[in-house]
Amino acid sequence: MKVVTCTAPTNIAVIKYWGKDNEEINTPMNSSLSVTLHQDQLRTVTSVAGGSALQTTRLWLNGQEQPINRRIAVVLREMKQLYRRVHGESERQDELHLHIVSTNSFPTAAGLASSAAGYACLVATLAEFYGISKSDEEFQGQLSAIARQGSGSACRSLDGGFVAWRKGVRSDGHDSIATQIADELHWPALCAVVCVVNDVQKSTSSSVGMQTTKATSSLLTFRAKNLVPERMTIMEKAILNRDFETFGTLTMQDSNQFHAMCIDTTPPIFYLNDVSCQLINLVHRYNEQAGRVQAAYTFDAGPNAVIFVEEQNVQDIVSLVLYCFPASPQMIVKSSILVDRTLSETLLAKMENKIGSSKACKLSRSPDTVKMIYVSRVGGGTRVLPSNEALINDITGEPLSLHA
Amino acid sequence: MKVVTCTAPTNIAVIKYWGKDNEEINTPMNSSLSVTLHQDQLRTVTSVAGGSALQTTRLWLNGQEQPINRRIAVVLREMKQLYRRVHGESERQDELHLHIVSTNSFPTAAGLASSAAGYACLVATLAEFYGISKSDEEFQGQLSAIARQGSGSACRSLDGGFVAWRKGVRSDGHDSIATQIADELHWPALCAVVCVVNDVQKSTSSSVGMQTTKATSSLLTFRAKNLVPERMTIMEKAILNRDFETFGTLTMQDSNQFHAMCIDTTPPIFYLNDVSCQLINLVHRYNEQAGRVQAAYTFDAGPNAVIFVEEQNVQDIVSLVLYCFPASPQMIVKSSILVDRTLSETLLAKMENKIGSSKACKLSRSPDTVKMIYVSRVGGGTRVLPSNEALINDITGEPLSLHA
Repeated sequence: MKVVTCTAPTNIAVIKYWGKDNEEINTPMNSSLSVTLHQDQLRTVTSVAGGSALQTTRLWLNGQEQPINRRIAVVLREMKQLYRRVHGESERQDELHLHIVSTNSFPTAAGLASSAAGYACLVATLAEFYGISKSDEEFQGQLSAIARQGSGSACRSLDGGFVAWRKGVRSDGHDSIATQIADELHWPALCAVVCVVNDVQKSTSSSVGMQTTKATSSLLTFRAKNLVPERMTIMEKAILNRDFETFGTLTMQDSNQFHAMCIDTTPPIFYLNDVSCQLINLVHRYNEQAGRVQAAYTFDAGPNAVIFVEEQNVQDIVSLVLYCFPASPQMIVKSSILVDRTLSETLLAKMENKIGSSKACKLSRSPDTVKMIYVSRVGGGTRVLPSNEALINDITGEPLSLHA
Repeated sequence: MKVVTCTAPTNIAVIKYWGKDNEEINTPMNSSLSVTLHQDQLRTVTSVAGGSALQTTRLWLNGQEQPINRRIAVVLREMKQLYRRVHGESERQDELHLHIVSTNSFPTAAGLASSAAGYACLVATLAEFYGISKSDEEFQGQLSAIARQGSGSACRSLDGGFVAWRKGVRSDGHDSIATQIADELHWPALCAVVCVVNDVQKSTSSSVGMQTTKATSSLLTFRAKNLVPERMTIMEKAILNRDFETFGTLTMQDSNQFHAMCIDTTPPIFYLNDVSCQLINLVHRYNEQAGRVQAAYTFDAGPNAVIFVEEQNVQDIVSLVLYCFPASPQMIVKSSILVDRTLSETLLAKMENKIGSSKACKLSRSPDTVKMIYVSRVGGGTRVLPSNEALINDITGEPLSLHA
């Protein structure tokens, strides 16, 4: 039995994707741009096993067997076609049944985008299984287009660093692919503080949300056609120049505009809750006391905040979030950077006196509403793991039981 | 001492005004359209006293003396100019000092738009004081333009029924005035259920909000120029046809789009809170079970909902709100229509089984978050009160103490 195992990172868009141009092939109404987060905190691991002993293709996600849904079937079909284009009719590995086992390093219930990492990991693992090198320029675009058909933003999780997914112009979607604009070493100081917010209400899924917004919002097309192209240019330049002020300002604006599209939908979609709004206000207040943009939030289809900061300000943001959203000392802060949880008196004083404003104003505090914090650097793309880290038994083809 | 007293209604916009074209003269970036609420529930009363015994012009709002702010000064100046154009130099009443006393019938802290009713009432009372008939067509437009300079939406509170404030094209703003498109008898079944929501955070004032949105949103100009004109036409027609479905659908869409503009602002402005969102979801769910739009929410610059329904559905909405936002039995429901506070079992069953959907789903309940309900019909414009209802002692010119 042949078993290969890969990992894939999550990514967080700073220019948001919302709205499909073509539902069938998953092309977007506008280009988007994302930062790949480091896999030390958040990652998906997927093993693929194939051999003549397997009777049928099966899938396990986070320990549970799942049916093969339409999008996974599309990815499998496209990867097999690519295999045949590459290897011809000689070996016919594409006729093997597969066992696929995939797990996330973070709780699924946390509402952290798992489909991007999941589909990117599936494509990377299948590519490795079928002997298609993802570093071969010929295949890069094709793998990206296949990942996109699994889940739009998955094409942005194949690469590390900073990734642009260009909308493309072809009707077959072959040029609607993601490419790296700068690698993970380009801006070493950049960090993301991920704040997992308690979500009481069940959120609308992205695919349903996008469909409804496209069908009912009179603003979405205007944004996609008239606003995003310029934003892409500005964002790309800001990243290349490591210009945090421009990067941060536009990141916040684009997050807010995406949520504006959601509210302009009928019925309106609310992903941000009161805690999200408090986090937003906190970041603006932090920037106000600093006199410049030192932190920038962005929110996807849920209430969790991702706050970008440069390394020297991670301590400020983590301690501020812990101060304003007090939790038990056991609350998990999973960080690649050493952080002191205590807010400094100096920063508290600056925050509460709002320099430049006449009156003092206490920070509001909401206990037990932020339930986990991850601090992540910019990370690399998909990786191949050694065989001893496989999630599948290479004799039986069965999933290995997972460690706690 | 001459004392005159008038009342003015509040109005709630169904096509929203957001963004000033000219700050100086308070002209809007787009036309807007509102429904005047009945004065039985919500109104402002203003008395103006004038006589040679008064030494200076003074103002009392809700029992507290206040300085004359810039906008009140503008209204006083413009009304005096209008007086001179009408009466010439003969009587010179415009040289008299005035005492102005104004009160609202609703708690100011409730965050119900009081400036519209307040400035409309001031203009109406001064017009009466100066002997300028507001039913004279010659003066209607001029009074409207003066009220607009006090507070934009005040021009829509002079008239009853359904009122359109046309943006106008003149640079002096003389044609930026409100006119009635249908009177208060036109659609007798239409009612507004005003839900006053507990507001923890202090909201951004409309004038500051509009300035910031205009300066930072890339969507506002598009909305004002490309979307509102058509919406005005559709809304006007829906009102003339008493077409609740079109009226309600567009009312909700325009409220949501206004809040989308607020979120597209830097820093973003959040007027809706989690309770507002729950009210929005409740209305959509109510319409879903009905299979058509029978209720329509709209929100101004705060978390309070105004839910339009026809009379036969008032009971449904009031009892649903009381069920989902349970409060003490002493909670005030101020209604012109007899309502039973208890939700019928039939409606609850329909709501929770979501006809047309496969699974049952309980209504979520948030105690003590809606603190007051007003049920109002469509009402008339400003009115003159008899002298025994004056708020000022006509001998001393001092404010009369207010009844509880």
